[in-house]
Amino acid sequence: MSTNQSQKPLTTTVNSLGHIEIGGCDTVELAKKYGTPLYVLDKATVESACSEYKTAFGRYAKIRPMYASKALCTIATAKLIAKMGFGFDVVSGGELYTVYKAGVNMSEVIFNGNNKSYDELSLAVELNTGRISVDNFSELEMLNKIAVAQNKQVKIHLRIAPGIECHTHEYIQTGRIDSKFGFDLSQIDRAITYILGKYRNLELVGLHTHVGSQIFDNKIYVDEIEILYKEMARIREKFVLCLGEINIGGGLGVKYTEADNPPSIKEFADTIMTALVNASEKYNIRLPFVYIEPGRSIVSPAGVTLYTIGSQKQIPEGKKYIAIDGGMADNPRPAMYEAEYFAEIANKSASIENLQTVTIAGKFCESGDILIKNIQLPNPEKGDILCVFNTGAYNFSMASNYNRVQKPAMVLVNNSQSDIIVYRETLDDLISRDVILDGLE
Amino acid sequence: MSTNQSQKPLTTTVNSLGHIEIGGCDTVELAKKYGTPLYVLDKATVESACSEYKTAFGRYAKIRPMYASKALCTIATAKLIAKMGFGFDVVSGGELYTVYKAGVNMSEVIFNGNNKSYDELSLAVELNTGRISVDNFSELEMLNKIAVAQNKQVKIHLRIAPGIECHTHEYIQTGRIDSKFGFDLSQIDRAITYILGKYRNLELVGLHTHVGSQIFDNKIYVDEIEILYKEMARIREKFVLCLGEINIGGGLGVKYTEADNPPSIKEFADTIMTALVNASEKYNIRLPFVYIEPGRSIVSPAGVTLYTIGSQKQIPEGKKYIAIDGGMADNPRPAMYEAEYFAEIANKSASIENLQTVTIAGKFCESGDILIKNIQLPNPEKGDILCVFNTGAYNFSMASNYNRVQKPAMVLVNNSQSDIIVYRETLDDLISRDVILDGLE
Repeated sequence: MSTNQSQKPLTTTVNSLGHIEIGGCDTVELAKKYGTPLYVLDKATVESACSEYKTAFGRYAKIRPMYASKALCTIATAKLIAKMGFGFDVVSGGELYTVYKAGVNMSEVIFNGNNKSYDELSLAVELNTGRISVDNFSELEMLNKIAVAQNKQVKIHLRIAPGIECHTHEYIQTGRIDSKFGFDLSQIDRAITYILGKYRNLELVGLHTHVGSQIFDNKIYVDEIEILYKEMARIREKFVLCLGEINIGGGLGVKYTEADNPPSIKEFADTIMTALVNASEKYNIRLPFVYIEPGRSIVSPAGVTLYTIGSQKQIPEGKKYIAIDGGMADNPRPAMYEAEYFAEIANKSASIENLQTVTIAGKFCESGDILIKNIQLPNPEKGDILCVFNTGAYNFSMASNYNRVQKPAMVLVNNSQSDIIVYRETLDDLISRDVILDGLE
Repeated sequence: MSTNQSQKPLTTTVNSLGHIEIGGCDTVELAKKYGTPLYVLDKATVESACSEYKTAFGRYAKIRPMYASKALCTIATAKLIAKMGFGFDVVSGGELYTVYKAGVNMSEVIFNGNNKSYDELSLAVELNTGRISVDNFSELEMLNKIAVAQNKQVKIHLRIAPGIECHTHEYIQTGRIDSKFGFDLSQIDRAITYILGKYRNLELVGLHTHVGSQIFDNKIYVDEIEILYKEMARIREKFVLCLGEINIGGGLGVKYTEADNPPSIKEFADTIMTALVNASEKYNIRLPFVYIEPGRSIVSPAGVTLYTIGSQKQIPEGKKYIAIDGGMADNPRPAMYEAEYFAEIANKSASIENLQTVTIAGKFCESGDILIKNIQLPNPEKGDILCVFNTGAYNFSMASNYNRVQKPAMVLVNNSQSDIIVYRETLDDLISRDVILDGLE
């Protein structure tokens, strides 16, 4: 089984107490030691996903996996993933700054995004960011100005909207024609003309597309590669310009629930490599240097969130609600995307006694704060530790302070050791940027 | 026009430069001075909404407005609203701590929520919080234990699920039977029996309900009051216990778009007071002390968000996208609730030249990050300042750091003066809780 096809961290076991163990750590003990809600990340699972990508694409030397930081971006995870030989896809000054502070080799970083600011682009150029994926004409002009001001040559990709779309939640379809992202195919020639003409501090080295997220059908990558090659061939013909790089983005799905059946990392790699070889032959183009940008499939299965079960409410002849001490602020995906998650009671993992169908409600003051609808749990009781799986991606990274609740801590587990990698917010953190204004007494 | 019926802050004007002015401050100058995105809050509009509530309920001495902090909770806004004679509804330890730090009289605070933690309830009791609205049996037991430990008598309300619902977005219907909030009507007698029997450190003084948010039809409050009185009469009969207080929650709507027609604050007050008087007569119950919990209607119209327009993208024979330097991280409501907003270009407010129908896209790396669909704006250009109205509620309070983007600053404007009330996050703030772990190099 491929790492992204695992619903749980790969090291997940049940110990003699009937408790869920991850990375050799008893999750019930982790909850006791660090408090809840607690994000837990299994080092071995992250490493396994990274290794699988490296191995699967291994026979093709010119592939470069760039971790999509927006899935989960902290200094520790950046260090860990860099150590596994990945570069980084960043989408803001904040992500850029984080990987820089993590000591990542900045030549191995690509800066993406549909509306990068002047300050963000300036920082990217200053830090000698490896590639900047330019999204539109406004960015082209601004970036050249910055490059001139800093007296630098900047290697860029052009992000293009390929006009295809994947069948996933509407919000994460990014490749269709009606998208805020990238140059329309009809605009590319004008962009290249500008780069070759007036934007002399920009060097166009490749094309970039991204067709979506949580993708289960590899066929879309074949279509995407065909479009990229067709464009490369056209550009070679028209501008006598051989682009040596393509960035095909990320998107490989994970198994949130039993119903999810994502292809394996190897299947993903094989589909892509076959498509690349075929397209190279068809268009008579040397195999380019290829960037891929996996995010979710690297960190999602590695992460779980531990919550403490609090109050319960049985609706007469209706649902049973089990409330936890977190919810939509630490995991907004169910409220925002109707995302589904799987969970178990960490201290009753081996049990099948008194199985009840319950709804997991968060603690936030909003009816929509429901984390999981209709899940079977063995006799859920106050004080039990709920372990929600596959929360490594887009949980911490999307977390808010709604209801002025502190963001949880995150621990990295490995070989029976646990280490804090993000401190829990304190009450004083919550008010740390509030200004006490005179005259309001 | 009532404050909550205004789409814009009450002080909004257009100055001689054609710029939007709020609180006597040129918004284009505010954007220049403080940067964008920028939350702007108009002091006069907050004060006006507060005054309207005070006046509308003025002829009834026993009404107590408690500002629903979850709409917007900062030290400065708490000070401002406290000064207007409001108490506070808080729903977490963080909100409790914020109003405490703002110097609010803690006897004028109600603590609500469906799953308060032991720590939160302990803090509430320690700070002598005026009322605690108990949501379920688990909380009853825990709160009594805490009260015993601290040797205190704690005045409580029982939150009940009245079994009615309002016609608003599903996520913010909170009064229906199938809700995570409150005691079911069939559970109340048992709760009271416990309080009168074994929970001797709790004093039951009233009942609490909340039927939803962004409500346009006052009739639901009449139904709610009927249910509360029926319960009070039943409790008087069965337990010889006269409850002197009811908390009818909040929910009055605001005018996000032209299509929204919320009733005025006065109409809201009149409906409620008439219903109270009628119910008191019908059930022969002395008018109780009544708490109301307005949030959105106090701060939403007072707030605008200023963004800088960046890149643009014209889809061939399709939409025109205008990208701004913020989006779903500073205002998740469009992505989460399909909420609609109105906006104008702050530096072209007087203009009707070259009106274009455009879609406002955020800068976040996600297709769902669209702030406003199909709005007419006069010749939107890079560098223009977009002013989005009615963002005072549930924007800052729900903001995340998605894509590791810094949360915006907030300024309070009044009498041509502007003051920072929340500092903008810095790049270093973003990594301030990240731990640099040895062994990950």
